[in-house]
Amino acid sequence: MALKAIKAGTRNDSGIVAAKELLAARFGERFQAGEAVRAQHTHTTTYIPAQLPDAVVFPESGAEVREIVKIASAHRVPLIPFGTGSSLEGHVNAPHGGISVDMMRMNRVLAVNAEDLDCTVEPGITREDLNTYLRDTGLFFPIDPGANASIGGMASTRASGTNAVRYGTMKENVLAVTAVAADGREISTGHRARKSSAGYDLTRLFVGAEGTLGIVTSITLRLQGIPEVISGGVCPFPTIADACNAVILTIQSGIPVARIELLDALQMKACNAYSNLNYEETPTLFVEFHGSAESVELQSRQFAEIASELGSTGFIWTTNPEERSRLWKARHNAYWAQKGLVPGAAILSTDVCVPISRLADCVAATQEDSAAHGLVAPIVGHAGDGNFHVGLLFDDKDPADVARAEAFVERLNARALSMDGTCTGEHGIGQGKMPFLKAELGDALDLMRQIKRALDPDNIFNPGKIFA
Amino acid sequence: MALKAIKAGTRNDSGIVAAKELLAARFGERFQAGEAVRAQHTHTTTYIPAQLPDAVVFPESGAEVREIVKIASAHRVPLIPFGTGSSLEGHVNAPHGGISVDMMRMNRVLAVNAEDLDCTVEPGITREDLNTYLRDTGLFFPIDPGANASIGGMASTRASGTNAVRYGTMKENVLAVTAVAADGREISTGHRARKSSAGYDLTRLFVGAEGTLGIVTSITLRLQGIPEVISGGVCPFPTIADACNAVILTIQSGIPVARIELLDALQMKACNAYSNLNYEETPTLFVEFHGSAESVELQSRQFAEIASELGSTGFIWTTNPEERSRLWKARHNAYWAQKGLVPGAAILSTDVCVPISRLADCVAATQEDSAAHGLVAPIVGHAGDGNFHVGLLFDDKDPADVARAEAFVERLNARALSMDGTCTGEHGIGQGKMPFLKAELGDALDLMRQIKRALDPDNIFNPGKIFA
Repeated sequence: MALKAIKAGTRNDSGIVAAKELLAARFGERFQAGEAVRAQHTHTTTYIPAQLPDAVVFPESGAEVREIVKIASAHRVPLIPFGTGSSLEGHVNAPHGGISVDMMRMNRVLAVNAEDLDCTVEPGITREDLNTYLRDTGLFFPIDPGANASIGGMASTRASGTNAVRYGTMKENVLAVTAVAADGREISTGHRARKSSAGYDLTRLFVGAEGTLGIVTSITLRLQGIPEVISGGVCPFPTIADACNAVILTIQSGIPVARIELLDALQMKACNAYSNLNYEETPTLFVEFHGSAESVELQSRQFAEIASELGSTGFIWTTNPEERSRLWKARHNAYWAQKGLVPGAAILSTDVCVPISRLADCVAATQEDSAAHGLVAPIVGHAGDGNFHVGLLFDDKDPADVARAEAFVERLNARALSMDGTCTGEHGIGQGKMPFLKAELGDALDLMRQIKRALDPDNIFNPGKIFA
Repeated sequence: MALKAIKAGTRNDSGIVAAKELLAARFGERFQAGEAVRAQHTHTTTYIPAQLPDAVVFPESGAEVREIVKIASAHRVPLIPFGTGSSLEGHVNAPHGGISVDMMRMNRVLAVNAEDLDCTVEPGITREDLNTYLRDTGLFFPIDPGANASIGGMASTRASGTNAVRYGTMKENVLAVTAVAADGREISTGHRARKSSAGYDLTRLFVGAEGTLGIVTSITLRLQGIPEVISGGVCPFPTIADACNAVILTIQSGIPVARIELLDALQMKACNAYSNLNYEETPTLFVEFHGSAESVELQSRQFAEIASELGSTGFIWTTNPEERSRLWKARHNAYWAQKGLVPGAAILSTDVCVPISRLADCVAATQEDSAAHGLVAPIVGHAGDGNFHVGLLFDDKDPADVARAEAFVERLNARALSMDGTCTGEHGIGQGKMPFLKAELGDALDLMRQIKRALDPDNIFNPGKIFA
C-alpha cells in the first residue's frame, strides 16, 4: 500500500472527449457517463481512494470489445476492464481517466466439455453462477477467493484462495483465453489440450496481467469432479509454530488436503464474538478433505495423527454437511468478524506469501509488530500456500492512523521479501503494491515494462497499474 | 516437421569472427571450435539434419554467462544454449551460425529446502543426478520426460512426460528462474513462495521459451515427497476406445493416478518381441499409483473396477518393486522396441496432444492413416493428458520415404488441431513444428514475435526457432 503515492496521471482530454462521443453514438444506453455509475465502477472493497473513469461502456460480445478497443486505440484513451469490483488494490481506478469497460453482460457459458473436465466462459460470469450452472454435470470450478468475483477478474489478478493448496490457482486452472489486443485483433492463446509446448505461454501472460495487456473476452477453465464426500474439521494448537508445523507435515506427507486455513488467536476471538461461538482462542487450523468416503476418512485420520504429534488435543471433524457448515462458520465469517473488533473502523485487507517454513516466523513477527504499535490486526492465512492476510483496522479519516497503517504494511512487505516471499500471493499489484514490486523483482520489472510497451505501445490498457 | 523448410539463415560472419576471438581469449580451453565438438552439440535424437554452430563455450557461472551474452550482444552473434542434446525438434541447431553455450558445467544444486519442498539448481544438472542428490531428503523431482535431460532443457521446452497427469509439467513445477537478458543483466523472475500475484508471470514466459528470450542460469523447482508405496499395473483392453474411456473415468473419479500410459497393439507387439514378453497384443494401459499403502490399495481397486466396466479382464498390479519393474519393462523399453520393428530404419518421434475425449478418435484415425499409407508407426501415449507419440519408422536416405513421413506428420498435426488440440504437448516447437504453430495460434503468433523483439531486439538468443 502507499496511499500517498497514488497520484492522478496525465489525461488526454481531447482524446477522451472524442472517444466518448463515438462510444455514445455506437452503444446508446449501454454507454453511461453519470457520476453515480462512474463512482460504482471504482467502488470496491479496496482501502484506496477512488479515481473515477470518464464513462462506462457495457459490451455484450467480443466483437463489441474489438470496436471499443479500436476507438480507444485511435484516440489513445485508457480502458479499464471491470468485473464485480471485488479487487483489493485499486485495480479498477482510473488515474489517467478513460473508459471503464464493464464486462458483466458478457456472462455466458460458451461450452462445457464434461469428459475433458473443462469449460469455456465469458469473463463476466461469477464463480458462483458458474458453479450453479455446472451443478448437474457433477463438476465444479474449485478456485474460491472468498468474494463472488467474476472469472475474468480472477484470471486477471491470478486469484486463488482457500483451496489452492489442492487445486492450484488461476495460473494452473486457465487453459486458454481469447483477448482483444491493442491493434483490435482478438487473439486466442491456446486450445483445450491439457498441456502444450507450443511457443510462449501467452495464457499465463494474460493470467495476472491485471488487464494491462488486452481485454480478455473468453476463458477456458479446468474443472474438477464434485467430491463424493467432503469432511471438514477444526483443530486448535498451542502456538502458531505448532499449527504451521502441522501444515508442513501434512503437505510433506502428501495428504491432498483441500483447504487448510490458519486463524490466529485474535481472529478466533473475533469469530467467537461475531458468530456467538465458543472456540478456544488459540491458533486454529480449519481443514477440509475431498474424496471418496474411504479416502476422506483416511486423510482425516492421517491429519489427526499429525495434529496430535504437534500438541493439539481438540481436532473435531465431520462429513455431515450441516455440521461441517457449522464448524466452518467462523472461517466463512472471518472478514465480518474482523470488522466487529473495532466498530466503525475501516479495514485494510492486505496479503503476503512466504515459503511455508517461514510462515510461523512471519506471522509471529507480524503479531509482535502490531502489538508494538498498538494496532488491531487479526490474521487469516491460506497456510498450505504460506499465504496470509492481515485485516488491519484503522481510522481512514485520521491521517496519523493512515500513516501508521501504511508504515505497518511497508514493514509487512519488507518482512515477507526478507523471507524469500512475495508482496502478494493472490491480491495482485494494482496501485497499492506498486512500491513493493520493484523491491521484490528488481531489474525483472524492466522486462515487464518491455513486454507492456511491445503489446500496448500507447498504454491504453489499464494504465497506472503494476508499474506507474 | 518440415525437413525441406529448414534452411540456413543469414550469417553475420564478421561479428562471429570477432566474438570467437574475444571468447577464445577469455575462456581458453573452455572455448572450442573443432568440428567434432561442434557436431556433438547438434547431435541429438532429432530426425532433423544438423546445422553446426561456429564454436562452443562452456561457462561455469552466471557471471560467465553474462560475459558471453555481452560479447554476443555487442557483435550480434547467435547464442544457442545446450544441455544434454535430447531435444527432438532441432532446438539446438545453429541455422544462422553462432556460439553453442554448453550449460553442463553449471550443474550444482544451490539449495534444498526440504520443509518447503523446493530446491534451486543450476540448469546443467540432469533430472537423474538431481534425484540421486535428493534421495536422502525423502524428496524427489517428479517430472520424467524419458530421457535423462538437463533441468534447464526441460524448463526451456516445457517438458513433462509420464507422470505429468499427477504432478503437472515444468510449467507447474518451476517456481522461478534467473536468466541473463539481452542487455547482459541477470534477472530473477520470482522467489520461493508457492504462489504469487506480483506482476507478469515471467517465470512461465521463460518456461517453454526454448532459449529464445535469454539464457537461464538457475531454476527453483517444486519437489514432492517420495511416495511411501508405489503400485504398478498393466491392463489390456479390447479397443483403443475402451482404454481411453477407462482413462477418462479414472480422471473424472478423481483417482490421483501417477502415470497412465497407453500403448497401442503394434507397440505391444514390438515390446513383446524386443523384451521377450508375452503380453496380449491389444491396446494396453500401464498405470502407477503413489501414496500410503492404504491409499495405493484403494486407488488400485478403484481403477480395477473402472477397467472391468470397460471390458478389461486382465488387470494385474503389484506393490513389489521388482515385480513392478518387470511389469513396466515393456513401457520403459518402448523406444528401443520401436526401433526393432524395422531394423536399420530411422525413427521420427513426434507428439501431439488433444482433449482426452478426442484421444481415442485421434489415435484410431492416426492408425488408419499409417495403415492406409503402408507406414509402420507404433503409438505410445501419456493418456491422462491426451498426449501421444508416434514413432514413425522410415528410411531417412530415401527422399520418397522422407516425403511420405513429412506428409504423415502434417496430417497428424492437422488432425490434432481439428480436435481442438495442440501440435506439441511436450516436445516444443524448435524448427520441426514451426509450420504448425501458425495454424494452431494464428494472430497470437504476432504477440509472441512482439515479445521476442522487445526482449531480444538483435535476435541473438537461439534464432530460427519457434518462429523463423
